[in-house]
Amino acid sequence: MSSGSAATGPHVLRRINATAVLNALRDADDHTATVSDLVVATGLSRPAVTRALTALADAGIAEFSGTTEHHIGRPAQRARFRAELGHVAGIDIGPHKVVVLVADLAGTVLAQHQAVTPAGHTGDGVVRLLRDALTRVTTDAGITPTDLWSAAVGTPGIVDHDRGEVVLAPSIPGWSSLPVIAELRDWLGCPVAIENDVNLAVVAERWRGGHVGLSEAAPWRGDDGDNLLFVQWGERIGTGMVIDDKPYRGASSAAGELGFIDLVTDLDDEPKPPTDGLGAFERLVGAGEILRLGLQRCDQPLRDRLAETGDIAVLFDAAAAGDPAALSVVDTIATRFARGLAVQLLIMDPRCVIVGGGVSRAGDVLFDAVRKRLARLLLVPVDLRVSALGVNNVALGAVRMALDAVEERLTALL
Amino acid sequence: MSSGSAATGPHVLRRINATAVLNALRDADDHTATVSDLVVATGLSRPAVTRALTALADAGIAEFSGTTEHHIGRPAQRARFRAELGHVAGIDIGPHKVVVLVADLAGTVLAQHQAVTPAGHTGDGVVRLLRDALTRVTTDAGITPTDLWSAAVGTPGIVDHDRGEVVLAPSIPGWSSLPVIAELRDWLGCPVAIENDVNLAVVAERWRGGHVGLSEAAPWRGDDGDNLLFVQWGERIGTGMVIDDKPYRGASSAAGELGFIDLVTDLDDEPKPPTDGLGAFERLVGAGEILRLGLQRCDQPLRDRLAETGDIAVLFDAAAAGDPAALSVVDTIATRFARGLAVQLLIMDPRCVIVGGGVSRAGDVLFDAVRKRLARLLLVPVDLRVSALGVNNVALGAVRMALDAVEERLTALL
Repeated sequence: MSSGSAATGPHVLRRINATAVLNALRDADDHTATVSDLVVATGLSRPAVTRALTALADAGIAEFSGTTEHHIGRPAQRARFRAELGHVAGIDIGPHKVVVLVADLAGTVLAQHQAVTPAGHTGDGVVRLLRDALTRVTTDAGITPTDLWSAAVGTPGIVDHDRGEVVLAPSIPGWSSLPVIAELRDWLGCPVAIENDVNLAVVAERWRGGHVGLSEAAPWRGDDGDNLLFVQWGERIGTGMVIDDKPYRGASSAAGELGFIDLVTDLDDEPKPPTDGLGAFERLVGAGEILRLGLQRCDQPLRDRLAETGDIAVLFDAAAAGDPAALSVVDTIATRFARGLAVQLLIMDPRCVIVGGGVSRAGDVLFDAVRKRLARLLLVPVDLRVSALGVNNVALGAVRMALDAVEERLTALL
Repeated sequence: MSSGSAATGPHVLRRINATAVLNALRDADDHTATVSDLVVATGLSRPAVTRALTALADAGIAEFSGTTEHHIGRPAQRARFRAELGHVAGIDIGPHKVVVLVADLAGTVLAQHQAVTPAGHTGDGVVRLLRDALTRVTTDAGITPTDLWSAAVGTPGIVDHDRGEVVLAPSIPGWSSLPVIAELRDWLGCPVAIENDVNLAVVAERWRGGHVGLSEAAPWRGDDGDNLLFVQWGERIGTGMVIDDKPYRGASSAAGELGFIDLVTDLDDEPKPPTDGLGAFERLVGAGEILRLGLQRCDQPLRDRLAETGDIAVLFDAAAAGDPAALSVVDTIATRFARGLAVQLLIMDPRCVIVGGGVSRAGDVLFDAVRKRLARLLLVPVDLRVSALGVNNVALGAVRMALDAVEERLTALL
């Protein structure tokens, strides 16, 4: 039980203190704080904070922004974290679109670019699209791709993050066999992380959540983060979980595959393997099925509008306005979705469920119906919310993940 | 960042050292070790270990068992943890039986008693049965109930362990409304903990596992404990999970309710609330349904034997011997069970699944069929094992939980 080691000399201690002050400064409003604020936030002494700020300023990480307050006899200096010192990219590669965000080191998004993947695309086409998008969005942010400090990629499928590979991604043909991450690393010359898209969506919810409260309860907060379920509901369905404040991935990074549960095949039959790459539950309640039911059940002119736009929002708007056929589609989908979601809730018992993805924009007409049905299927009630983050949620989670890799480069400057 | 505090004086340090030596001694083979063994196990110096052992011996926690080895010039003293110093009880309260174990402070089981609950029992009847069982089993162990240092109770249903109450337990009428834990505490005069039975079964698997390896893989070990799923399969079905080396309970202690998932109700219909207290999946593959299918499909004399004994082991033995009707029941049950289990595996992605409970004794004829079907339903393979712990698994997990509460009383002796 020896105490103390060579690693706790004054040099190391100063670096630890500077890192603590850096984190407190970055988390402060406008990334700006006085020495007194930082003494409170870090628990360090005033001389230690001042020494740390000087080191940060010398390294170009912080700057002093003059005196704005006056204590008795001494001016209060304000320091600011220089978030503009570097940039990160958050990338969402989906089966239908690529979204790229560029953010500063405080996570403020500076530029966004979204590109639609052409029909019949393959993994190679996605890579080209991604390079174009990265070039455009970095230009918009006033930098070049090689200026990036770090990037993270969200992708559908099962991801091996230790090896930086996509193991299985049925929704993008040829995608899982490409060495995309290695190529991106070579091109950008910075760390590139990869993670399942829905896991990044949960990270984004925890970071920048603030949900559309469909129930009367207060908005979801970080302290519920010990047990949160996120459901991405679009063409495909995937779920991400936060347990004990960490993303839960399962033993093979394959947890949360709600889209593949089978509630339809007659129980004593063998389920047939899918031919369209979709999971059984995705075929039942995914955006494709919602559109199909709408075209089947709705009368003209609603049917024509649906056929023309291919946009299920048309259907949900009609349902909200009281159209009986549209309401019957909502009813069918709500019943099915509640049945599948109930399974995961019975198993996981999360404190809060947040629904995101394209279908989440359907609004109260759908989610009130889902909530009503869920209540009858569960042993304990659950708090169901709709995500407020929209289409950028995965890319935003990727920004958050890219920022995690920046820490090391920042402290190396000290 | 001050280092050192008033709490690290020599007195506190000695108690910390004595606790470290105590733990190492208890974990040693036969709870016996030399000073040299303990120096290696704890990393403490020889004088510190000797001082700690003297304190443990003075408190009656350890004893010196003479000299058995000779180092150059000095005899090696052996010390032994006095596991007989106190006793704990592990209790399993099920809908059909009560199991009580008494163990010493090293967790060695000294006495076991099992009582079958009479038909039409209620919560009150269960409490009487439990008091009788505790009186008998403590007598067998050479003590009285009030000699116990600690007890823990496993029960079906949803448990609020902070308040020590059963919130919901449909399988034992009237059980959840009784202040059983408070009564037991008063009677025994020691801490009494309560936990969901299946959560205790997982604890037991991790503690004393060693599973019947149905696959060729090596037996499950503690280092897989980061992600383990236990399925209790009897009349009822419940699951317990270990995530990151801790039992996972969910936000409302209601996680793992696989028995209540509904795979049968036609998807666009409203499921009907159960009238028999069983969950939808329990009605599909529980021991009751297995017996029912056997009586329905098997010819005489197998049917008569099944009707007479009510024992599904008869059915599984016949299936293993090649009886076609019995095999068809196994086939049906394996197909259904795999369908339900696949749902939880798709969501949780555990490293290992251990099946316990009455049906787990069916053997390879059932589990080979389950494994074959699972392989077709999953995205990643899973390692399915059968528990080797038998009917005592929940009570054994309760012993382990009761031992956790003993630590404090032991160190208070120092």
